[in-house]
Amino acid sequence: MSSTNSSGEPAAVRVVGGWASPFVNRVVVALKLKGVEHEMLQETVGKKSELLLRSNPVHKKIPVLLHHGKSIAESLIIVEYIDEVWPASDGAPAILPRDPYCRAVERFWAQYIDDKFPRGTRVLRGTVAGDKDGVVVEMSTALKHLEEAFVKCSQGKQYFGGDNIGYLDIALGSFLGWIKAVEKFAGVELLDEAKVPNLAAWADRFCAHPAVVDAMPDADKLVEFAVKHAALMKALDAPK
Amino acid sequence: MSSTNSSGEPAAVRVVGGWASPFVNRVVVALKLKGVEHEMLQETVGKKSELLLRSNPVHKKIPVLLHHGKSIAESLIIVEYIDEVWPASDGAPAILPRDPYCRAVERFWAQYIDDKFPRGTRVLRGTVAGDKDGVVVEMSTALKHLEEAFVKCSQGKQYFGGDNIGYLDIALGSFLGWIKAVEKFAGVELLDEAKVPNLAAWADRFCAHPAVVDAMPDADKLVEFAVKHAALMKALDAPK
Repeated sequence: MSSTNSSGEPAAVRVVGGWASPFVNRVVVALKLKGVEHEMLQETVGKKSELLLRSNPVHKKIPVLLHHGKSIAESLIIVEYIDEVWPASDGAPAILPRDPYCRAVERFWAQYIDDKFPRGTRVLRGTVAGDKDGVVVEMSTALKHLEEAFVKCSQGKQYFGGDNIGYLDIALGSFLGWIKAVEKFAGVELLDEAKVPNLAAWADRFCAHPAVVDAMPDADKLVEFAVKHAALMKALDAPK
Repeated sequence: MSSTNSSGEPAAVRVVGGWASPFVNRVVVALKLKGVEHEMLQETVGKKSELLLRSNPVHKKIPVLLHHGKSIAESLIIVEYIDEVWPASDGAPAILPRDPYCRAVERFWAQYIDDKFPRGTRVLRGTVAGDKDGVVVEMSTALKHLEEAFVKCSQGKQYFGGDNIGYLDIALGSFLGWIKAVEKFAGVELLDEAKVPNLAAWADRFCAHPAVVDAMPDADKLVEFAVKHAALMKALDAPK
């Protein structure tokens, strides 16, 4: 999706990102959910563009949302920004719930996800050293907690957010590609239907949602990416 | 401040906390800023009350805000909850700015603070192993970044939040007690007036603010707490 206009000027909304990043995926899904036209600027793995270094000088990480020249970093903060700038309308659902307690609950679990899943998937991919068996236990426990959270938050509806995808759906859903990829990569089962039946059914619904279906990276491609990435990291680390 | 009523029923707003915790301090300052009467339930170091285990079963950590029986955990999430439940009025300022971009900027730096300061102060206290010199460099760099953020956010006014204390003031200000304590404890200088002049002046203003002055733990008492805490941890780790 690109909104670069015919005069060649940059689009009003641009995302500095990479197709394989679950954090970038959050931003893309939020923008698609709101129907916001945007331009995607793909970073090259192992390099950092001048634009990225300039727009996120502290962390130097994707994603960055560029909106009328202003830059916003950190995926969950960007998702909240998107929800505040493009509030609920006929075509676009609210991302955060309105009730302060429900907002706090969704923020709590989103923070929990960012505490467990990024490191866990990196350990299982082999890009971060760590106890793989321990990580599988930790991620399975996290999914069990999230299964219970789903039952409480969704109240019998389709998503954490109720009738439509919301903040917590995006926070967790963006990791589904990598969860499936590391299941293949490491030969483990995480999203086990027998253990987390509601979450497994939710995952299928989330991935088939119109805002997600074309945005979610394919697990096999992520496995391929993980193999290439590991080789690249090894080459960069090798003595010159 | 206690709002336990005369019938002995629990107060509508209770905080499960501990006087030495910067995270608890955030909640207390936010409640005082809003003029919300609350009851403080002090946890004992090294033990966890049944109430804490029940109200924050995932992390088992303070602070927890109990509001009409509902429990909210994680300090920054609680501060946002307080701002949403008790919105700006004559007596109570808004905590988050209204502008989505300014909100995103304050959230970004608050997350940055939680990435750098809790671990840094623990390493300097000796409760977490780590490279102390490296941590001093990291925390000094963080304060330098926050000095620049202060100039941008405050736009010549008294606080990050403008004319009154806001979200980022609370997020960083709550660490001032511990920053001063580890300066004494580890014999280092972090909040150096020559290097971060605006932040040093802001720190004095923050600590003297009516919502903070009685809530900020004294640095000498924190040093004493750190010594006792280290001894307790050692005793708990010792072979039985």
